[in-house]
Amino acid sequence: MDKAQLIGLDWGTTSFRGYLIGGEGRILARIAEPQGILNVPNGDFAGAFGRLVGPWLSQHGNLPVIASGMIGSRQGWYEAPYVECPAAAAQIAGRLVAVGAPEGRQVWLVPGLSYVGKDGVPDVMRGEETQIIGCLQADAAGRRIFLLPGTHSKWVLVEGDRILRFATFMTGELFAVLRAHSILGRLMQGEAMDAAAFRRGLERASGADHGLLRSLFSVRTLGLFDRLPAAGLASYLSGLLVGSELAEARRWLAAEGGIVADTTSVVVTPTDITIVGGESLAGLYFDALTAAGLSGQLAPADAVVPGLFRIARAATLQGVTP
Amino acid sequence: MDKAQLIGLDWGTTSFRGYLIGGEGRILARIAEPQGILNVPNGDFAGAFGRLVGPWLSQHGNLPVIASGMIGSRQGWYEAPYVECPAAAAQIAGRLVAVGAPEGRQVWLVPGLSYVGKDGVPDVMRGEETQIIGCLQADAAGRRIFLLPGTHSKWVLVEGDRILRFATFMTGELFAVLRAHSILGRLMQGEAMDAAAFRRGLERASGADHGLLRSLFSVRTLGLFDRLPAAGLASYLSGLLVGSELAEARRWLAAEGGIVADTTSVVVTPTDITIVGGESLAGLYFDALTAAGLSGQLAPADAVVPGLFRIARAATLQGVTP
Repeated sequence: MDKAQLIGLDWGTTSFRGYLIGGEGRILARIAEPQGILNVPNGDFAGAFGRLVGPWLSQHGNLPVIASGMIGSRQGWYEAPYVECPAAAAQIAGRLVAVGAPEGRQVWLVPGLSYVGKDGVPDVMRGEETQIIGCLQADAAGRRIFLLPGTHSKWVLVEGDRILRFATFMTGELFAVLRAHSILGRLMQGEAMDAAAFRRGLERASGADHGLLRSLFSVRTLGLFDRLPAAGLASYLSGLLVGSELAEARRWLAAEGGIVADTTSVVVTPTDITIVGGESLAGLYFDALTAAGLSGQLAPADAVVPGLFRIARAATLQGVTP
Repeated sequence: MDKAQLIGLDWGTTSFRGYLIGGEGRILARIAEPQGILNVPNGDFAGAFGRLVGPWLSQHGNLPVIASGMIGSRQGWYEAPYVECPAAAAQIAGRLVAVGAPEGRQVWLVPGLSYVGKDGVPDVMRGEETQIIGCLQADAAGRRIFLLPGTHSKWVLVEGDRILRFATFMTGELFAVLRAHSILGRLMQGEAMDAAAFRRGLERASGADHGLLRSLFSVRTLGLFDRLPAAGLASYLSGLLVGSELAEARRWLAAEGGIVADTTSVVVTPTDITIVGGESLAGLYFDALTAAGLSGQLAPADAVVPGLFRIARAATLQGVTP
């Protein structure tokens, strides 16, 4: 049987995922709990760690533990300061921060990345860097684009095995607050995806003259005038926001030396955009990329695991074999 | 003493304003109460009307009553269906809807306006039409632009005394939900306006390559990296949103046959944009227009009053003299 070498944690804002990891980063066992850093009572991360990971530690002895995600933020267990881009696994591994856990153990926290854009505005990620590294081969070459959709959607430019630059778009959070707290949510009914309404939102967002502030109001008026069914309004809003993100990201990529040239449908160098994320959201973005004349591919599930394994190996954490 | 001719009500979502109106639209007395349609218990508008306006009715006898704003919406007292643009005071006056009030009285509800844009998307206003009409002379000529900032900011193109076209931008509501419910609000401190931070938001929004979804995240990162003080973050967000509205509105005006030509700072035909709104918000937009190389002027206060008076006169409501 494959011997456990590492315990890897993907500990984010709302969820906790633990992996017992064997040789070459194979997953031997896993835990998933809604124990994100916001849900740990009194910020007792050491206690939560003991409850969640204790059984593995008892069973497998002195395994090293590495954790990525918001657990390493100021709001988490302990802050692991951002590493500036460009950065590969080696740079990240050199900046792990150890925090003391019960019974004399240590948990190694993976730092997030920062990048100051050409416009002088800083950007940050925490957790996504590990997923991306998990998607890269050690001998990776050439430029690639990664897309990590979510609350704060990230577009990331990678060269070889280095994360060069990235940008964040508030797409997911904007959708959530508008649905829950704005007048737009009042007419919406149901949770089901309406593919035609989503497409319609995408199409509107791709129109050059349709800014987002005005398009948002169309969610209300198309509902009021019965031009979209109430059950399709959330999907239409989603399409508007995802389509706007695509248009903005293409301009950002063009400005930052990326591969996709401009806001039209012309891709100068044919390329795949690798989408890293949960199935339904990744599928939505895959469709949106296709509709925009771009091509996407889905990253393997649990990309964080080979990422944690590679960083741990680069840090030569005890027990993790090359 | 000037004899009262009309009672005019500006009855919106969150506030109620009543005016006792004399010859030529002069204001003889006024009431302001936080009795917007959302704050009237059980939707008992007749009861609220009696409490608020009863004293004037007792004192001045059988005055006609006219009301504009959300009171005439589906969520209000009774729905006065939208009148399609283009529309002047005469068209609006021809579509007043009477609703029965206590003691055999009637209240005349002013309909809102609708406009289907060149992109096929409908837009609506309710209340703003009366304010605009209050700003127009009967012999008005030429094209003018009105800007009514607020929760749902309106840009309105007027020709002579007719409201031709308009567009709505969700600027104010987006600001409110982002501040109250998103991660952006968490770092913000204080309510005071920070003019420099507002200007910085405006400047960023005017950059062609800076889309809103990415710019929004800069509110967080500029705060995190201490590049903007916590006390300036709300003003910066406000500048970002107002600046984005300006850029979108200029594109809209160019597309809809307006006067301001494009997204650069060039104004093809020199013109004033008339800003209708409360002092602090109107002042903010005035500054934003100036910063964008446009010129604004503030509409007179209580523009709704001459608007209600003109519509009542056009409808030849009993007692309102020409």
